[in-house]
Order: sequence, then C-alpha cells, then structure tokens
Amino acid sequence: MRVAIPLYPGFTALDAVGPYTVLAAAPGVAVTFVAAEPGPVRDEQGTLALTATASFDEPPGYDVIVVPGGTGTVPALSDRRLLDWIARADATTRWTTSVCSGSFLLGAAGLLRGRRATTHWGFTGQLAAFGAVPVEERVVVDGKIVTAAGVSAGVDMALWLLAEMTDEETAKTVQLAIEYDPAPPYEAGSAKTAPRERAERALSWVLRQTAAA
Amino acid sequence: MRVAIPLYPGFTALDAVGPYTVLAAAPGVAVTFVAAEPGPVRDEQGTLALTATASFDEPPGYDVIVVPGGTGTVPALSDRRLLDWIARADATTRWTTSVCSGSFLLGAAGLLRGRRATTHWGFTGQLAAFGAVPVEERVVVDGKIVTAAGVSAGVDMALWLLAEMTDEETAKTVQLAIEYDPAPPYEAGSAKTAPRERAERALSWVLRQTAAA
Repeated sequence: MRVAIPLYPGFTALDAVGPYTVLAAAPGVAVTFVAAEPGPVRDEQGTLALTATASFDEPPGYDVIVVPGGTGTVPALSDRRLLDWIARADATTRWTTSVCSGSFLLGAAGLLRGRRATTHWGFTGQLAAFGAVPVEERVVVDGKIVTAAGVSAGVDMALWLLAEMTDEETAKTVQLAIEYDPAPPYEAGSAKTAPRERAERALSWVLRQTAAA
Repeated sequence: MRVAIPLYPGFTALDAVGPYTVLAAAPGVAVTFVAAEPGPVRDEQGTLALTATASFDEPPGYDVIVVPGGTGTVPALSDRRLLDWIARADATTRWTTSVCSGSFLLGAAGLLRGRRATTHWGFTGQLAAFGAVPVEERVVVDGKIVTAAGVSAGVDMALWLLAEMTDEETAKTVQLAIEYDPAPPYEAGSAKTAPRERAERALSWVLRQTAAA
C-alpha cells in the first residue's frame, strides 16, 4: 500500500512523523514524502527539515494521503501546486486524511464541502469557511475523508486508519511495537477542560510560530 | 535553554520528533539536531531523512540532550564519534536523556553504571550489560539521567522534562497547544498485557527494520 505525506514550508513535524511512524511500521506499507521539489523542507520552527523524495509534478497514484498542519498552513492556502496535488491525489485515494490545520488544505482543495471535519481546537469553527461541518472530536470520519484534531491526534488517527487499511491485529501489533501506552504527566491536553487563560496562552504560542515561519 | 538531539543512521524518527515538538514549542527553548556531519540523516525505515545543522566536532555546551533510539542503535554502539559526543555533552548538561533504545547509547558512553534505566520493552533486561539497573517503567529518572520506554514514550518524558526545565504551567500549556489528550483506538500499547504471539510479532517487525537499516 502506498501512502504519501505532502510537505510544505512551516508544517508541524509531529503531524507528519506521528502518522508516518505508525503506518510505515506495518509490513507492506510504503510512505513517501512529497514536496514542491525533492529535498529538505523546513518545519514551522525553522530548525528542523524533513527530506521529500518526490515532487508535486509526479502523478500521485497513492492509496492514502496524510496532509499535515502547521502554522505554514496560512500561506499554503494559496499554494496552487500543493492544492492541485491534493485534489489530484484525492481522485485515486482510498483514504484522504489530515492532521491539525491540514484540514484547511483539504478544504482549500475543495474536498470538505458538506463534510464533517475537525482540526486544532483553536480553529475548529473556521472550517465552516470551506463548507465543512466543524466537529470537535479527536478523529472525524466522513466517507473517505478522515481529519484529526491537533498535532498529537495524528497518531491516534493513524492507528485507526491502519486497521482500516489492513486489519485490527496489525494496528494493535504496531501500537505495541511503538509502545503507545500513553501516560502524560498531566491531564492538560484537552481544550474542553483547560482554564481560559492557559488556552489563550497556548494559542498565542502557536501564533508566535506563525510569525516565525 | 539549549537542547540537542543527536542523529545517526537508523534512528527512529518519532523518538526524536516527539520530544522535539514538545520542547521546541516552549518559549526560550532552542533545539539543535546534531550528527556526524551537518545534513540529512536517514531513519531506520530508510525513507525519511531529518536534517542536522551541527556536527559532533563542535563543542556541545547544551543544557539538555535527548538521544533517540532506533534499529540503528546496534551499529551505533561502536560509533566512537557519537559516543564521545554523548559523553562530552553529558559533562555540562543539566539533563541527559534518551528514548527507546537510545539508552543503550548512554550505556555505551559509560553513563548508566549503577543507574536505574529503561528502554523498549523488548530489550529492557539487556541494559544490565552496561551496568544499569533495568526498570520497566515509562519514564525513569535517576539523578540527571532520564530514560524513556519505547518510541512514543518520548512525548511523555519530554512533558515531564519541560516542567523541570521551566515550570509545570509551561508544560501544561504545551500539552494543550499540541492537543496531547491521547485516545488510541485500542488498549494495545503495553507489553504487560499483550498476548505473547502479538509481542513476538511486534519484535519481529522491529528486527525486520534492523535488517533494512
């Protein structure tokens, strides 16, 4: 099975690497990183680059795509080559997926009209601008479109997706192989229970990265 | 605060990118990827490269190092430049940490003698070969040495570490920013409850990556 993860300047590394690690761990799954040109693409921090090995000009033909988010999503909304690639890739995928603000790129590619979809908790409502029905859930499935919430939600989505692509036992084996038995030291990851002041600070840190990208 | 993550051929991408994403999200924390030479370093799948921007020849001087694991750990155990860098970096760190089989590199650098430490569940006992006291916990702290269990445990470790480096509120704000409110579709990440057959298969998949690296 062929999976592609498109990269663009200012993506969030974990949005891409979380699902990559889950999917690529399964036998028979090949993951390709695609970008405007093959070569390194910088993330939103500007300090890490992941290397793409294929270009948006090549015919996609993937079974699954995973579009990462990141503060670079805002300029990427007017990146025609990226959006055209997403639309072309979607024409042949079995699953078209996104993590965090990657769902805005699905929206800009015209794929979310009338679809239930999610994104990072700070920006959920804005998905309506693309004709989507915003939903506050960790993983949202609507037909073949699967969207995950913020950053770390891509790992949970990828395990669900892998079970659909292969079978439940394969997904559970990968979960064990990567020892994904999460035990965060705090219960602080949900916006539903976060103090308002902390939520505002978290969003201001995200926006700070936008300025740096 | 300065954090370094050393890369070597065959590392596991999520071991590096999980902690990176947590730590770099906090204001005032700069993360540098270091390798034998600046440039792309391939992971254990061989399909993804992360770009290092500093070399093992430069004087370390970091407050924190995070050593990733991966199937490339085995050849890396005899990589003198990497091990010397770890030992030199450790001389000035406030925290010396590892994820997954990265703890074997701390061991080979002579840093685990008499220390409690952990690694991926499939290899915990083997830490004794480096004079360590193997412990089956998700995050193990012994003095300034902090070791995390397999792959995904690096995210949990990094949140704990960030609270120590800064304060609890900063760690909680980052956890919210990356929406780390984990909800895996299965309860299959712990070796303690896994069926033996699945555990054997999971390890064989890990070893298959060793062969590919």
